[in-house]
Amino acid sequence: MLEPATTKRVAEAVARTMYARDHAARTLGMIIDEVGPGFARLSMTVREDMVNGHDICHGGITFALADTAFAYACNARNDVAVAASCSITYTNPAKRGDRLLAECVERFHRGRTGVYDVTVTDQDGRVVALFRGNSRHIGGKVVPDLEIGT
Amino acid sequence: MLEPATTKRVAEAVARTMYARDHAARTLGMIIDEVGPGFARLSMTVREDMVNGHDICHGGITFALADTAFAYACNARNDVAVAASCSITYTNPAKRGDRLLAECVERFHRGRTGVYDVTVTDQDGRVVALFRGNSRHIGGKVVPDLEIGT
Amino acid sequence: MLEPATTKRVAEAVARTMYARDHAARTLGMIIDEVGPGFARLSMTVREDMVNGHDICHGGITFALADTAFAYACNARNDVAVAASCSITYTNPAKRGDRLLAECVERFHRGRTGVYDVTVTDQDGRVVALFRGNSRHIGGKVVPDLEIGT
Amino acid sequence: MLEPATTKRVAEAVARTMYARDHAARTLGMIIDEVGPGFARLSMTVREDMVNGHDICHGGITFALADTAFAYACNARNDVAVAASCSITYTNPAKRGDRLLAECVERFHRGRTGVYDVTVTDQDGRVVALFRGNSRHIGGKVVPDLEIGT
Repeated sequence: MLEPATTKRVAEAVARTMYARDHAARTLGMIIDEVGPGFARLSMTVREDMVNGHDICHGGITFALADTAFAYACNARNDVAVAASCSITYTNPAKRGDRLLAECVERFHRGRTGVYDVTVTDQDGRVVALFRGNSRHIGGKVVPDLEIGT
Repeated sequence: MLEPATTKRVAEAVARTMYARDHAARTLGMIIDEVGPGFARLSMTVREDMVNGHDICHGGITFALADTAFAYACNARNDVAVAASCSITYTNPAKRGDRLLAECVERFHRGRTGVYDVTVTDQDGRVVALFRGNSRHIGGKVVPDLEIGT
Repeated sequence: MLEPATTKRVAEAVARTMYARDHAARTLGMIIDEVGPGFARLSMTVREDMVNGHDICHGGITFALADTAFAYACNARNDVAVAASCSITYTNPAKRGDRLLAECVERFHRGRTGVYDVTVTDQDGRVVALFRGNSRHIGGKVVPDLEIGT
Repeated sequence: MLEPATTKRVAEAVARTMYARDHAARTLGMIIDEVGPGFARLSMTVREDMVNGHDICHGGITFALADTAFAYACNARNDVAVAASCSITYTNPAKRGDRLLAECVERFHRGRTGVYDVTVTDQDGRVVALFRGNSRHIGGKVVPDLEIGT
């Protein structure tokens, strides 16, 4: 069993590697605020190119933010995981200029499968969407040469 | 009951109005190939800014394409509808350069609620994702002054 | 705003009324252990007539337990609510003789819609299933003549 | 590649074996009307012990019927499969005495995973619920000594 400080460092190394490759997350202006084992918190501002004509954030963009938080959380132990299936419930519209926060927590993890919940809120704490992701480990490491604990 | 040619014209007028406002869909390069009552078919090429480091399309972008097909299908009768909840199952990865097709059909529609299924395939007909959306009409018209049948 | 002691009494009166009518829950041997506003905890033993040939609890029965917890939680304020859509992820099989516990918490509630999460565990605390329900209030009271606070 | 007549016989042999063990399905009065590779059609009458006080079928029982159709469809090629996750949307209430039909079709199947859609209708063809199940093969055969094609 690794100590908390170590698992945190692993999660941060994994996140750096993923983010460097993650054109989509960077193009959408997502920031990785914090990661840990089975945990991730991201933020993103709703830009003009993310809205429809009512200045409401496109549901697919809100989903993309939640899905990205899910990806960073379920890969944070350095075992490559992919999304098997996801669901989202939209609770309040997000508007242009809103600063969205997506926080992902692990609800279950065993063997090759995991379940993760993401809550997306705006700058006033209103819940914009609730997301649930089912992950599956497919083998391999995100950071192949990660030297844990050194 | 409107004739098929008329409901098709309504769906096309609604789609034009929505697309003109839909910054997100246009920024992602989505094309509305065909619409009809409860139906929509869209296409999109997976660009470099839509992939992660494995040149695999970000799951959130695949979702955004499916979600957009859902939006055009469930608004096609000119009654404003929003997504209440959605789910997606990822079946095959989409790669950079793939031309994705999202086809949305109506599975159920009554009163204020509807259920829509979207199949996302690539240029070779491989199924990339299966999406299901639950919609809710919130009142109002997409095209306020649409003169139907004239 | 009602005091906690009052909202708890309302939830309990609603649960008594629902349970008296709820043939399905009683036939399946479900017990309502605790209710409160937006909250319910139920238990059920996996009987021989609930399993398949591997002595594993039928997934539909596990779902029924979770769904019932959801129903008691989302009706607990005495506003009639129904399930719009639900999802479940199976995490560990439940076996014949297992005592299952389903605990439902409210994740979101506003206007006519709500989102509820149910965790189903066995007597050893193992997570058997994670359930999420989207509710919709349809008007009306569960207990028409409930005299709150008297 | 087996001939259609053979795959049909395999599905029927698997269904007979599953049904003999399936206490839950039999206790709920479910009948297996037809099976084939990736396909199943079941029926069930809504009994008094399946309803709540409004004589409406318990959502968990409707789910159980759909889930059972899913199980018979995804095991029909004699490769043991289990439900990973499922979702259901309720579209119309089913009443006591209704004869429900659940028809399951395969939307996707590759390697160890599959996606199946179940439509539940009543005797008048009204859609009661739409169900989607994600399956996972876990290895092994339903009928170990099934002699295919003989």
